[in-house]
Amino acid sequence: MKSFFAPESIAVVGASDKPLKAGAVMVKNLRHLGYAGAVYPINPRLSEVYGFRCYPSLEAVPGAVENTVLAVPRQAVPEELRKAAQKGVRAAVVATAGFADAGDEQGRALHEEIRRIRDGAGFRLMGPNSIGTVSPASGFTTSITTLEPLPPGPVAVFGQSGMFASGFARELASEERFGISRIACLGNKLDIAEPDVLEYLRTDPETRVAGMYFEGVTNGAAFRRAAARLARMKPLVAVKSGKSELGRAAAAGHTGTMAGEDAIFAGLLRQLGVERARDFEEFFDLLEGFARLPLPAGDRVGVVSITGVGCVLWADAAAEEGLRPATLSPQTLSRTREVFPDWAPVRNPVDMWSAIERSGVEAAYRALSGALLDDSGVDALLCIFTLIPESEFDAQALFAELRRAHPEKPLLSCLIGGDAERALEFRRGLRRAGVPVFASPARAMRVLGALRRRASWLTHEASP
Amino acid sequence: MKSFFAPESIAVVGASDKPLKAGAVMVKNLRHLGYAGAVYPINPRLSEVYGFRCYPSLEAVPGAVENTVLAVPRQAVPEELRKAAQKGVRAAVVATAGFADAGDEQGRALHEEIRRIRDGAGFRLMGPNSIGTVSPASGFTTSITTLEPLPPGPVAVFGQSGMFASGFARELASEERFGISRIACLGNKLDIAEPDVLEYLRTDPETRVAGMYFEGVTNGAAFRRAAARLARMKPLVAVKSGKSELGRAAAAGHTGTMAGEDAIFAGLLRQLGVERARDFEEFFDLLEGFARLPLPAGDRVGVVSITGVGCVLWADAAAEEGLRPATLSPQTLSRTREVFPDWAPVRNPVDMWSAIERSGVEAAYRALSGALLDDSGVDALLCIFTLIPESEFDAQALFAELRRAHPEKPLLSCLIGGDAERALEFRRGLRRAGVPVFASPARAMRVLGALRRRASWLTHEASP
Repeated sequence: MKSFFAPESIAVVGASDKPLKAGAVMVKNLRHLGYAGAVYPINPRLSEVYGFRCYPSLEAVPGAVENTVLAVPRQAVPEELRKAAQKGVRAAVVATAGFADAGDEQGRALHEEIRRIRDGAGFRLMGPNSIGTVSPASGFTTSITTLEPLPPGPVAVFGQSGMFASGFARELASEERFGISRIACLGNKLDIAEPDVLEYLRTDPETRVAGMYFEGVTNGAAFRRAAARLARMKPLVAVKSGKSELGRAAAAGHTGTMAGEDAIFAGLLRQLGVERARDFEEFFDLLEGFARLPLPAGDRVGVVSITGVGCVLWADAAAEEGLRPATLSPQTLSRTREVFPDWAPVRNPVDMWSAIERSGVEAAYRALSGALLDDSGVDALLCIFTLIPESEFDAQALFAELRRAHPEKPLLSCLIGGDAERALEFRRGLRRAGVPVFASPARAMRVLGALRRRASWLTHEASP
Repeated sequence: MKSFFAPESIAVVGASDKPLKAGAVMVKNLRHLGYAGAVYPINPRLSEVYGFRCYPSLEAVPGAVENTVLAVPRQAVPEELRKAAQKGVRAAVVATAGFADAGDEQGRALHEEIRRIRDGAGFRLMGPNSIGTVSPASGFTTSITTLEPLPPGPVAVFGQSGMFASGFARELASEERFGISRIACLGNKLDIAEPDVLEYLRTDPETRVAGMYFEGVTNGAAFRRAAARLARMKPLVAVKSGKSELGRAAAAGHTGTMAGEDAIFAGLLRQLGVERARDFEEFFDLLEGFARLPLPAGDRVGVVSITGVGCVLWADAAAEEGLRPATLSPQTLSRTREVFPDWAPVRNPVDMWSAIERSGVEAAYRALSGALLDDSGVDALLCIFTLIPESEFDAQALFAELRRAHPEKPLLSCLIGGDAERALEFRRGLRRAGVPVFASPARAMRVLGALRRRASWLTHEASP
């Protein structure tokens, strides 16, 4: 598997100098992301592609080729794979679509032909219909869509979707949600499937948290074993589609996958300690939480909210996740009272608007968040923000300080409302301070609930 | 009620020239939003506030005062209300907090005292603990947080939260989701409550769609009557919090409200034809859908997606909402085939990536979206976008054209992935073209499901 994520050399079969072609984008990406290994574009009609010397065939490449990626018409794929086998490649990524995902007999026949070639060869195969992998720290990628450099970090995402190496990669980078260790887009899974990637990520030192999207699994026992082994060491979050009959039909059309019964997967994932996300928004929320936060010691939550509606929404969400409001100590209560007007009720969740009016926005956030985090009866803190001129202050500086003072407690935030550009800037700032930002109190509690469940699961289920 | 939304004059009791004070912000907002009525700041120590002549007392104002808003300490509120009654105001907004929402006896006593004054006076009262109202078309507002001009439009939002006139207002404006007709923030609902606003909005010609947030209702029969009457004429979307025991306790702390049993509200809202949103994200989605789209004639959906995963996610979401994939006519199929490579399966949902590779992005979107919308077997179309350099084109122009060609069919979109700044720009562009944009296929189908339910409900339940 290492040859898919960190090869020393790569050949791009079907390399092109026409900027929009997949065979051009791949080579450009390797240049642009700064991959330091050997890059061999293969195209008999060109002598150079984006600054790399181009070779007429794989055979003509001097020395070994560890990874090869194919961007050629589907009927040419078998022949190129045979050549790759002769060259002794370790890993082959087939980007071309039109096999089990296609609507015709020829696609299915080609699928079988590739399988036979693979079985007799010394390489593993990712795809077909795969965007391949990205390893941001080394700038290695086989994506067929134009990438910008991605922030390296602890989160690996993989599965049956090219979105991880295209649109989602851009979104995660620009939102500064978390850094990425590995991306793998499995496509039709003719050979490499979820268990292979799970096994690899388990011991990959760059990966601390893993997220997967899947439509179905081909080898249930292998999946179960690999997921269980990974989940004991690292948090694993999964989106599984094909819940409905309609969804299962769509999955078959997308990557030729049999999606299976949803209830079976739901039970299996729960048992394995895998956190299931209902959609990609929740998926990225959970990955952000696991990447940035420690697991909580208990279920007692402190809340500091700029708006009363935040306290009410929080309470409903906490109840749903089995979390409860922390009881504040007398010392904490007297510290919080200092910033409030006399008449204001002081209780948790803390509706802080009247404290802002009385003491100013920064002083109110500092006093209240600090007091609650210092309270040993508080296991985690949620701060609810909105962006209006009356609420602006240097939240990044204050929360970086609070985070340093209490590295052992999850400190989450949510931002509701405010100008969109300013909100984006605010989210980036808090994330740089190490505080994840969610779109609602419910989303924040969904994440804290997952952290809490993992803490319990590790104690009770995963103990040796 | 008109005096709360479109008064000819307003007095701001407790006006201030200290920029961060509520009594300053209110006057500034009236200037900045361009309110054309008479504005009378009231403060015995000032002669002018933000360019308006200031009066020492309400009594000193020459001529009538239709609406008065109070931003004075809570113990001064009763006396100022008595003066307002003497002056003959029609509407009073009490912005001050610290009554039924406070933690002390004095707050409750003041609440009762205000009630007695109100009962003997000729005015109606909004609040206390209320941010009041905004009417963007006329620039009228009593918000105590700094506002920017809001785009006028067909959607009214109101309820027990100040967020509508602060953070949410800014978010809606900057995202260009929909224009606003009225905002009302009811606070503690000592007098004006949901039924009053529902009755007003029913005949308000500027309002075509209504959205409310509530924690509980004080007069169930009046609420039921008013909601039923409005919902027959205009779509009504509601967020109801206080689902859990914890949430009900939090609601009592926020606005002194008894939240009641959630199951009772759920049944009631369904029966009345009110669409219940589970959170504010869904709430704004539904309002955007109702504001921009016609109701569909049936449940047959066409889907054009740039990514295969979009088709699978769509199918699960559609199944959940009781929607189904449209069967494409032979003519539509042959039109779609023209932009695809030979081997590609052509079916609905349409996974269009290979069409983009073969025919170019604009041609593919034009041919596929056009063909599906022209098909009489398609009741609504969803286009799924992601933002990568390979998928960029002038979507705003194309979709404005498609929308004009088929004003009778709901045309929805969703955008997943892509650089955050670029995504914001893209959403604004599509919304200007009249096409709502949602964060996932599931959110889009949630909205289409609501439109479809309303169409059925109007046919079966609301017929006279």
